[in-house]
Amino acid sequence: MSVTLHVCTTCKAGEVVEDGQPVAGAKLLAALQAGAVPAGLRIVGVECLSACNSGAAVALSAPGRWSYVYGRLTPADAPDILLGAAAYLDAPDGIVPWRARPVIFRKQSLARIPPIIIPPILTALEA
Amino acid sequence: MSVTLHVCTTCKAGEVVEDGQPVAGAKLLAALQAGAVPAGLRIVGVECLSACNSGAAVALSAPGRWSYVYGRLTPADAPDILLGAAAYLDAPDGIVPWRARPVIFRKQSLARIPPIIIPPILTALEA
Repeated sequence: MSVTLHVCTTCKAGEVVEDGQPVAGAKLLAALQAGAVPAGLRIVGVECLSACNSGAAVALSAPGRWSYVYGRLTPADAPDILLGAAAYLDAPDGIVPWRARPVIFRKQSLARIPPIIIPPILTALEA
Repeated sequence: MSVTLHVCTTCKAGEVVEDGQPVAGAKLLAALQAGAVPAGLRIVGVECLSACNSGAAVALSAPGRWSYVYGRLTPADAPDILLGAAAYLDAPDGIVPWRARPVIFRKQSLARIPPIIIPPILTALEA
């Protein structure tokens, strides 16, 4: 199973950033890439997760699983984000038991989206 | 193309609801189902989109497309939500030009998630 952690790299998280300095989202991405990335997790930077009032933000997703978006994160949260991603990797449907989630995942959820389940097309025999 | 509009049916949106009365999310779902649902749009109720501080919420998603979550919606927004869903249906990648989005979609975005793109596996010849 391949799980993707999208990280908003353009988020300034309300900070004033001098020219040439990395914004909050870019610093979060760098901290995650430098951390203990579990096998099977792909970390992908993305321009804007449209959570601009709740940045910096990340999204966990995988085919056939619930997707989760978390916000108000800092580089100091990188170890917990990676632990939470590892738990998501280990959960067959992506739904990690509440108490097994890092506190930041319990408290800083912005949204989750169910997996897309396409209803089977009825064949002539079934219809 | 089949597009899914998930609607959180458990959200109370901060309202006090008497026993037996529909909550805000259920009223939003009913208003959407009673509206001008465009062809190709499936409206699916779901228990909790984890956007509880920003309810009532809906999520638009389709295979291979960006997913979008919107919050702070009311039954009066149903016509605009359905117009926005129709525009999403018509956009090949799900990215609707900014000015073609309903105002509620421009102002009340909670998050968006990129489509899951699995990198091709290198074959022995390519590696």
